[in-house]
Amino acid sequence: MDVAVPFDAVDPKTRLEGLFEDAERRALAETVLEDVVAAIRASGREPTVYATAAVDLDAEVVVDERGLDPLVASLTDEPPIAIVMADLALATPEAFDRLFDTEGDVVAAPGLGGGTNALVVRNPAFEPDFHGTSISDHRQAVRDAGLDWTAVDSMRLAVDVDEPTDLVEVLLHGEGRTPDWLRDHGVSLAIDGGRARVVREE
Amino acid sequence: MDVAVPFDAVDPKTRLEGLFEDAERRALAETVLEDVVAAIRASGREPTVYATAAVDLDAEVVVDERGLDPLVASLTDEPPIAIVMADLALATPEAFDRLFDTEGDVVAAPGLGGGTNALVVRNPAFEPDFHGTSISDHRQAVRDAGLDWTAVDSMRLAVDVDEPTDLVEVLLHGEGRTPDWLRDHGVSLAIDGGRARVVREE
Repeated sequence: MDVAVPFDAVDPKTRLEGLFEDAERRALAETVLEDVVAAIRASGREPTVYATAAVDLDAEVVVDERGLDPLVASLTDEPPIAIVMADLALATPEAFDRLFDTEGDVVAAPGLGGGTNALVVRNPAFEPDFHGTSISDHRQAVRDAGLDWTAVDSMRLAVDVDEPTDLVEVLLHGEGRTPDWLRDHGVSLAIDGGRARVVREE
Repeated sequence: MDVAVPFDAVDPKTRLEGLFEDAERRALAETVLEDVVAAIRASGREPTVYATAAVDLDAEVVVDERGLDPLVASLTDEPPIAIVMADLALATPEAFDRLFDTEGDVVAAPGLGGGTNALVVRNPAFEPDFHGTSISDHRQAVRDAGLDWTAVDSMRLAVDVDEPTDLVEVLLHGEGRTPDWLRDHGVSLAIDGGRARVVREE
């Protein structure tokens, strides 16, 4: 089964603008992508990265400057295929094994806040669309098509790097390069009752 | 193995004060507790609720008005025991099966933001303390004691009902009574780019 990783190489991680400059956000996004590629590879698959601009990465990279939407739409023409978001900084080989090895027409890893962080598609009747609360839309589309829907219950696949609170999870649980990148850039945990949050030294 | 569910019956869910009145927060907390008890029971175990005040619940309830800290500290005196937070509104019998069936001296379900949402303790040398970023503290304490540490990778056990964003997950993925309670109280999803959030009709 092919594993596709769509990657916004132009303006990634816009919801982290309060913490990082543009170049830093691109560097962070590439670091997370490296972790995702490494975890997929350690699970025994060779990923293909579909990027909107050139990326310096030790992996097969297909550049398509039309943007991610037409790219993602074309991926499921020849199932089976796995589509994995490029920002799953907590993903481990074990989590990917569970995802890839779960049987079913469409297998999904829900993301926090209604997103879909990864899909395995084994039937061409289903076409993903990662906008909005895509996990509900995907579930409904799969059922409407008479296919079976399976969700993989994984925190490591549920957390993507979108919001500052996600960086808390990366610092606490990340096993790749991303937690080191964050610490090298002055990001640390702050504990003041309730959930931890991140702060950045200037 | 006994399953203990500590429950703050006096002033629960204070971080939802912006959305709910005091009596509503207590009603919500009890609804979530009912879901947790039902999911544990469906996984084949009979939970005991340790509460700080009387609770009207179809389960064994032990009331200890000293508060949750001394109560939790005493629970691990006779392992094995599982300690499950009372606010895991997404927990399913399958998620609890994975937790309870994972072998090891100490098995943990990390919560978002550094919490520990559930523990299985099989060695009396370890004593939990759920304050602060308890997942890091627990991991360190287990290793310091020469015991083995295992984390269960589950989104359904990682989400507890603490912050308004958690209610998004409950509306999207909850399978018990809590999503209905929320909808009955005017809580719904709002989608405006990025992650979904909750709004409440007045």
